[in-house]
Amino acid sequence: MHIINGNVYVGTNLLKNSELFTDILTSSRLLIITDQYISDLYLPMLLSALAGHRIDTLILPTSEANKNWVLVEKILATLTQLQHDRSSTVISLGGGVIGDLAGFAAAIYMRGTNWLQIPTTLLAQVDAAIGGKTGCNYLGQKNLLGCFYQPKAVVSDLAVLQTLSEREYLAGLAEVVKYGIACDAVFFNWLEEHVLLLKNRDLAALEYVIVRCCEIKLKLVALDETDRGPRLALNFGHTFGHALEAASMFELYLHGEAVAIGMLLATRLAVKLNLVMPEVLNRLHNLLQRLALPLQWQQNSHKLSEVVDCMAADKKKHAGQLRLILPCALGEVRVIQGLDFKCLEELIEDYAST
Amino acid sequence: MHIINGNVYVGTNLLKNSELFTDILTSSRLLIITDQYISDLYLPMLLSALAGHRIDTLILPTSEANKNWVLVEKILATLTQLQHDRSSTVISLGGGVIGDLAGFAAAIYMRGTNWLQIPTTLLAQVDAAIGGKTGCNYLGQKNLLGCFYQPKAVVSDLAVLQTLSEREYLAGLAEVVKYGIACDAVFFNWLEEHVLLLKNRDLAALEYVIVRCCEIKLKLVALDETDRGPRLALNFGHTFGHALEAASMFELYLHGEAVAIGMLLATRLAVKLNLVMPEVLNRLHNLLQRLALPLQWQQNSHKLSEVVDCMAADKKKHAGQLRLILPCALGEVRVIQGLDFKCLEELIEDYAST
Repeated sequence: MHIINGNVYVGTNLLKNSELFTDILTSSRLLIITDQYISDLYLPMLLSALAGHRIDTLILPTSEANKNWVLVEKILATLTQLQHDRSSTVISLGGGVIGDLAGFAAAIYMRGTNWLQIPTTLLAQVDAAIGGKTGCNYLGQKNLLGCFYQPKAVVSDLAVLQTLSEREYLAGLAEVVKYGIACDAVFFNWLEEHVLLLKNRDLAALEYVIVRCCEIKLKLVALDETDRGPRLALNFGHTFGHALEAASMFELYLHGEAVAIGMLLATRLAVKLNLVMPEVLNRLHNLLQRLALPLQWQQNSHKLSEVVDCMAADKKKHAGQLRLILPCALGEVRVIQGLDFKCLEELIEDYAST
Repeated sequence: MHIINGNVYVGTNLLKNSELFTDILTSSRLLIITDQYISDLYLPMLLSALAGHRIDTLILPTSEANKNWVLVEKILATLTQLQHDRSSTVISLGGGVIGDLAGFAAAIYMRGTNWLQIPTTLLAQVDAAIGGKTGCNYLGQKNLLGCFYQPKAVVSDLAVLQTLSEREYLAGLAEVVKYGIACDAVFFNWLEEHVLLLKNRDLAALEYVIVRCCEIKLKLVALDETDRGPRLALNFGHTFGHALEAASMFELYLHGEAVAIGMLLATRLAVKLNLVMPEVLNRLHNLLQRLALPLQWQQNSHKLSEVVDCMAADKKKHAGQLRLILPCALGEVRVIQGLDFKCLEELIEDYAST
């Protein structure tokens, strides 16, 4: 088992490790938030590891499309009705959506209860569960509401990744690729060299990848918790990606898939602006292709103009100007502000016709 | 003008001080949240001090009774519709209710926009606006939702206190008395000696009082932002007080009035438990009486059992046990946990019959 930064635990079969949970938990009352699929697979195992605690469970019907305030209210009402107080611990057992909703509820219930994250997707283990971003969609905009709120601990069990659907697993690898291209050229090289191991869900390779991604992210979060400076690098591919998700009503793409397409769009724009060598775009394209990730969006499903409109509403905008994270070399990005929308429209039209 | 801790400004006619606002504000887009009464009195003055900014205004129908999620949503919808981004500044111009609602919305909109507090009541200037507690009532429970979120600055203009109603002004003095009895015996002595100046709203006396209260509170907040240790002292009188407010549906008492009665109940309990000398109770009783604050609740309006029920639901409860802040000497309090409700019922019945 690896322990990163004192409270992120990565290892195999951690869900069965009752000693670990005894060490981590300070409270006897727990509310576990999960979904039906994960509950069927892993809740009994977790419940027996938590034996001796007073445990309530809430099963939510989650998807990226319904990650909204209604579900946050459901968690808040449950905490209230069952008379949890702020010494209780909310446990999120699931992917990024469960983590975001449960974390947001934990952050605002009685001005903050304890929160333990147990991410069960690759994407959540490398990205969503780390760094304390919580929130929900609101008025049709992704993550419009939320808080920065740190969990007491994150427990990432590698064993659970073996039951992920192929599509969900690959989408998680897109965020892994993001760390390489945005922050760490050596890591990107390593990914290029170990595609087969990754596709086979090799446990040792996954352990290396998850630990490395968490290290990179935690270092940036320590420098910049509230996403105003260095942490912005991790939004690489996300302005385009979020716009694709929003334009398709969060129903067409998994988040990681939208990020894969978003990274290609952002890098293409960087090449067009002479910010980066075309070689970086080629290597990114090839790696995503070898990982069987989508390289192009589903053009018949939503209009180009809608994607651009959604970018105009993105919350990474600053003082009314769109702010994009673009690569300037392999492993390095730059924040570019004040691009005009005409330029973006051209890029997107151009890309759509390739 | 006094500047406490680098960002709390206390002085006369600060609302007209455009230089001060230019120094404080980092953003050109502002959303001012206020109520109709304060808007009529002070909004034109503030708008002219803020000339040159792009200003939106939202007037809310606020009271302690409707300090709820519906109004927070109104602020969030306004920010969304007017396309504010997280470089905008939300300005709360009003009492504690406006500050709590606007601060909560600022805390969770896009995971946090800038927030400037301009408290216009004595209670907000000495207490509510300091220390970053934000929130709203939910499912009938006071401040059940909220965040700890610090404003960029607090601007307390003494001039606005002259237009407060007598009742509202006196209620603010109850929180001032709280600082004396819970944290600072010398300050309590000073208050006893300057009752007339205080009742006459003498500007120099008010300046001293507000600065002293802010100093005490900011020191405790620096030690314990999230209210788990030393800051709990400031909840003295509040468990009883909140229960009175909740049992009367937040309609009968101003917050400070409920706190005055709550402080008397807590001190009476402390005397009963031999925690504190009866002299402290007598001095508190006399000072509150000289300040024309209520000493007894309105017994016909709500039942004793409801007050006790509301205490049982208080969020300062810890791991299912009620946690009370009781005085152990003048200027000193202690956290007492595990009192049984029988004892509280007796106290309350006993007090009601005096």
